[in-house]
Amino acid sequence: MQPTADEVALLAANAAFYRAFAERDLRAMDRLWAHAPEVACIHPGWIPCNGRREVMQSWAEILANPESPRIRCIRPQAVFYGPIGLVVCFEAIERNYLIATNLFAMEEGAWKLVHHHAGALAAAPPEPAEAANEASGRLH
Amino acid sequence: MQPTADEVALLAANAAFYRAFAERDLRAMDRLWAHAPEVACIHPGWIPCNGRREVMQSWAEILANPESPRIRCIRPQAVFYGPIGLVVCFEAIERNYLIATNLFAMEEGAWKLVHHHAGALAAAPPEPAEAANEASGRLH
Repeated sequence: MQPTADEVALLAANAAFYRAFAERDLRAMDRLWAHAPEVACIHPGWIPCNGRREVMQSWAEILANPESPRIRCIRPQAVFYGPIGLVVCFEAIERNYLIATNLFAMEEGAWKLVHHHAGALAAAPPEPAEAANEASGRLH
Repeated sequence: MQPTADEVALLAANAAFYRAFAERDLRAMDRLWAHAPEVACIHPGWIPCNGRREVMQSWAEILANPESPRIRCIRPQAVFYGPIGLVVCFEAIERNYLIATNLFAMEEGAWKLVHHHAGALAAAPPEPAEAANEASGRLH
């Protein structure tokens, strides 16, 4: 199925987020976050960073760290709830995998992050062909 | 600051979710999830459950398990993005702590879950008095 124009724009914003992260580009990261007062960011294992100042402070520290691992976004899925765009995707960091919930709102005509929540996965995500049968078997 | 009526209603829906979870009440859990086709649920460490059938199947398995631990919701914070309500809260399971992103949409006049993402915290959440100074120090 062809993505809609809205999906293309939302997924492009999500891709720009992971590009800024991988390239340790704090200015690009700053442009990608909304100026809404209640933005929040939950890095893996952290308590939430609340508000733009705390969120950007966390990114400044992460992106300034030369040891911070390269990250790749895998299989992003976009959905819309009214004016909100939600992207769920896997994050690959070397051989570890995380899962992310990324919430975007429109600000000045562009999708901007208002909420990011990433957490570890217990195992590598299944290949797409396996995924359909995977979820219902997790507790068996 | 007094919560608004919207915040009271949203936090009541969030509390009902954790009550259904703690009491292993699958019927209540079912009533709390939206019928929107794209609902998703990310249990800690799991790949996402996508769509209502998979989401409810996961809850049926979790709530049927007599060994499933009791859960408590701690310090929920509500924000609104247009017609979407977002609650971020800590989850306490015995002596372990998680952090959750819960996204609600209005359906037939009530807040219903469209997205739940829970993941482990590396440490217990700080007491409220400590929280204001905590986030900026996480990477030091």
